[in-house]
Amino acid sequence: MLAHKIKQIAIYGKGGIGKSTTTSNLSAALSEMNLKVMQFGCDPKSDSTNTLRDGKFIPTVLDTLREKSTVKASEVIYEGYNGIYCVEAGGPAPGVGCAGRGIITAVELFKHQHVFEDLRLDVVIYDVLGDVVCGGFAVPIREGIAEHVFTVSSADFMSIYASNNLFKGISKYSNSGGALLGGVIANSMGQPYSREIINDFVKRASTRVIEYIPRSITVTKSELQGKTTIEAASASEQANVYRSLARKIAEHTESKTPSPLEAAELRAWAASWADNLLALEQGEITSQGAAI
Amino acid sequence: MLAHKIKQIAIYGKGGIGKSTTTSNLSAALSEMNLKVMQFGCDPKSDSTNTLRDGKFIPTVLDTLREKSTVKASEVIYEGYNGIYCVEAGGPAPGVGCAGRGIITAVELFKHQHVFEDLRLDVVIYDVLGDVVCGGFAVPIREGIAEHVFTVSSADFMSIYASNNLFKGISKYSNSGGALLGGVIANSMGQPYSREIINDFVKRASTRVIEYIPRSITVTKSELQGKTTIEAASASEQANVYRSLARKIAEHTESKTPSPLEAAELRAWAASWADNLLALEQGEITSQGAAI
Repeated sequence: MLAHKIKQIAIYGKGGIGKSTTTSNLSAALSEMNLKVMQFGCDPKSDSTNTLRDGKFIPTVLDTLREKSTVKASEVIYEGYNGIYCVEAGGPAPGVGCAGRGIITAVELFKHQHVFEDLRLDVVIYDVLGDVVCGGFAVPIREGIAEHVFTVSSADFMSIYASNNLFKGISKYSNSGGALLGGVIANSMGQPYSREIINDFVKRASTRVIEYIPRSITVTKSELQGKTTIEAASASEQANVYRSLARKIAEHTESKTPSPLEAAELRAWAASWADNLLALEQGEITSQGAAI
Repeated sequence: MLAHKIKQIAIYGKGGIGKSTTTSNLSAALSEMNLKVMQFGCDPKSDSTNTLRDGKFIPTVLDTLREKSTVKASEVIYEGYNGIYCVEAGGPAPGVGCAGRGIITAVELFKHQHVFEDLRLDVVIYDVLGDVVCGGFAVPIREGIAEHVFTVSSADFMSIYASNNLFKGISKYSNSGGALLGGVIANSMGQPYSREIINDFVKRASTRVIEYIPRSITVTKSELQGKTTIEAASASEQANVYRSLARKIAEHTESKTPSPLEAAELRAWAASWADNLLALEQGEITSQGAAI
């Protein structure tokens, strides 16, 4: 009997950048393609899967393990929109322990109980906080838990900085069985030059943009209803962008080692873009002035 | 001979909330009071002290230790605005190790070499990233490095969430020699109801606001020059707000154990404020409509 091949991907991004929004819409769109999906939240805030469950929080693996010593995986898996399995790893108690330990504990629990095989999953998506890629949060990359990594990034410097740090982590473990980089999901595109900025960054870091996701009020409205855009605004243009992303990720097979920028190089790059934008802005003002 | 008493405080805050801006202006204002100040950046981004040094980065303790095995403290201390000593602990290499280890290493180096005493410091301010208060970032609280903790928070939920997690960390170690909470520095005040929201939160968490800092374009302008507001706009109203904060912190002696909200309690609190604000907004629209 051929073993069922499960695609395991990790999505990293700075907190507040739209990582869980993107991941949940991706899960929803993959489920529409008749794929069996599990979304595995690895953010201590534990709200990754909320929009797949009408805005409701689910008990986390770590919290459940704190309450009782033996936990059946079925007790921490909750069914969400269109049959998507939702899990929240949870985080360490504030001030104690490491978030990485939490992620390992949750994944080990599932492995021991052969959960992925028994549920005949096609895709597992780990949604991981990417602000600080310390040893803990790098666990899904380092331990070979995920195979492909994607990062959600806007054109903001703080977001690109976090992505570049993630690339450093990926490079570090690329020769020892670590996950490789699938690409960048460019989010909140819409500001002038945001595409140019992110395109320039990915070229320098030897990776690519897998999808451009526009900033959209439809997403905000859907989330206020506690839902993904795929569910709440299924016919919208924005939902089709998430569907396009889902098709690309479903077909994605080959990830690569990125070439992160050195700290000084990244700063110089950001400074040159800042000068560039200032010059463009002043140019616009001048030409408007000339027209009057 | 009486030992010179050094005041050691830690300032936590979510990334992007204005933590380093506030800390640098605080250091600058304390230095104007003829206090000998050291600002100790504990954010892996290592840009805490930039506005004290004309926007320039300094080499971090960890980077310097990676290059050579023996490091004299004097090699990683840089003098900044008005004689303030600037230090950046630095962070672990992405994907490896723990940020807490970095902070401990940097502090130990200084302790062994009696740096604080030799420099006859009055105040040491640790500027710590507060997004994830895992065991690592809690080091300055837990290990008794700092005596008083302050958190910089806006009225945004993500910022308040991070502060509440910090309070949980402080409570945990409050009976075993850990640092206690001095209060909240309310930043970016200006949006309608931001004061009411933060006041309500601190009351529930048994703490207080030590200073309200308005959102100000003066701060942005100063930072674009690579300077603190104290330096670049010394006569401004905003500079006087930072001076007021500095006086309060210089005089501050008694910190307390906060009473953080439970996760469900915090969510319910945020939801009730969201309803509240919506009702107020709709009320305004109605009354405007009635006036037409």
